[in-house]
Amino acid sequence: MAITIRDVPELQHAADDVRRAGKCIAVVPTMGFLHEGHLSLIRTARQHADIVITTVFVNPTQFGPSEDLERYPRNLERDVLAATAAGTDYVFAPDTKSLYPDGYLTFVTPDRLGSVLEGKSRPGHFRGVATIVAKLFNITKPHKAVFGQKDAQQVVVIRHMIRDLNFDIELIVVPTVREPDGLAMSSRNTYLSREERSQAPVLYQSLKLAEQRMRGNEKTSANIIKEMTALITSSSPGVIDYISIADANTLEELPVCQEHRRHLISLAVRFGKTRLIDNITVTL
Amino acid sequence: MAITIRDVPELQHAADDVRRAGKCIAVVPTMGFLHEGHLSLIRTARQHADIVITTVFVNPTQFGPSEDLERYPRNLERDVLAATAAGTDYVFAPDTKSLYPDGYLTFVTPDRLGSVLEGKSRPGHFRGVATIVAKLFNITKPHKAVFGQKDAQQVVVIRHMIRDLNFDIELIVVPTVREPDGLAMSSRNTYLSREERSQAPVLYQSLKLAEQRMRGNEKTSANIIKEMTALITSSSPGVIDYISIADANTLEELPVCQEHRRHLISLAVRFGKTRLIDNITVTL
Repeated sequence: MAITIRDVPELQHAADDVRRAGKCIAVVPTMGFLHEGHLSLIRTARQHADIVITTVFVNPTQFGPSEDLERYPRNLERDVLAATAAGTDYVFAPDTKSLYPDGYLTFVTPDRLGSVLEGKSRPGHFRGVATIVAKLFNITKPHKAVFGQKDAQQVVVIRHMIRDLNFDIELIVVPTVREPDGLAMSSRNTYLSREERSQAPVLYQSLKLAEQRMRGNEKTSANIIKEMTALITSSSPGVIDYISIADANTLEELPVCQEHRRHLISLAVRFGKTRLIDNITVTL
Repeated sequence: MAITIRDVPELQHAADDVRRAGKCIAVVPTMGFLHEGHLSLIRTARQHADIVITTVFVNPTQFGPSEDLERYPRNLERDVLAATAAGTDYVFAPDTKSLYPDGYLTFVTPDRLGSVLEGKSRPGHFRGVATIVAKLFNITKPHKAVFGQKDAQQVVVIRHMIRDLNFDIELIVVPTVREPDGLAMSSRNTYLSREERSQAPVLYQSLKLAEQRMRGNEKTSANIIKEMTALITSSSPGVIDYISIADANTLEELPVCQEHRRHLISLAVRFGKTRLIDNITVTL
């Protein structure tokens, strides 16, 4: 069974010992309630390192005041079992007070990368993400960090943070794991009613439609987005928050799809109270 | 002679090797043009660690647009000699482009601690300080970091950053080194005309006057500040930017001096184009 650690200095000392022994550490930061997507991150970490640390922490600073912090699903006992089976050596599960003590005030800000796409709908979200990941890096002292492509903008923010703040950490990005019908795995899928769940795969279908059009003759993003919108709204009651075709590295919107560019096609859609996101990248 | 390194990954690898050997690293971040104050930091680091890294980098992000970035004095060759003599093993002297490449956008923000006192006069200064120090921590991977009490607010900002971002680093603060007449050592003292130089010791005299009054019967900060102002303006043409009596940990202004509190008495005064700062702490 993986060793569960709740105390920051205890994990830092354990990480120091591992490093002094010349071994490689990979960290998998999660908010817990682990599903196949997370386990795929842990299995990837297992392949790339001697010691795998999975962190389980529902980070309050990345939730907006009207968001689902309180009702976000939690089940540490099950997470430890699943993380262990997937190859985790340590589970770091701190309480909120130990990571955000009274008088907390230092944040890591991702500037423009944090204010577009998800950041437009969720102000402050990526400041919270960058801050907690910087903290977890300093606590777990990893050589490698494993994140999922599901949260594409998070990956871009973290990639920039690693470069800008000179973290000596290799970023490993793992493809999105999907249900058999294409729905991207997410802890928030548990919020969906049975009907919403049956409609939600249209998100991935719309992304694949966009790829098909883009690889065909349609290069105008607005036209592609119009088709995606039509598909989603005709086959579900989903309310579109945004659909975007952007440069996958800079997140700049691309009005026209270009050869040799890596395009990030991403979207956020509300099904009732549940906000789902998904994305694919396409290089022409 | 200390080994001079300009390349980020090269220093990170050197630091890894030192750590794997079970040795302790102390870093002394400086902007170069080393004087006795810096050398006192290096000597302290020498006493507390196996390996001392002195960083020499005039950090552009902590200068305002109208400040003295361009004319800030530089002399790397002399710095390496002096740092070596004081006990430095490595001098890290990167160029600006390698620390702030094109597209740089991630900053560490110290919130309220960065917007009072020096931060009021120098907007963005402490964001720049916190950011470069976080970067230098990730590059030099120290167990200990040594800073001077001369930059009192910087110490408070860094102390909070270390705690908030969970840097596993011990902060060591070294008393201000002064010229025989009391003037705090500073690279900016070289800007002073002979006349200004002869007047500048009044800053420290005013701080000592404040301590004397505070340890006497005067507990009202406004009265003490009035006396300090009178002393400075009567014996020099110095233009006072601020004089403050604040809690030394939170930087909250204290209208009344209190038993058992650590008071930070600090000031900034312009002599011609040169802005000088100084401070003392007093615990009643």
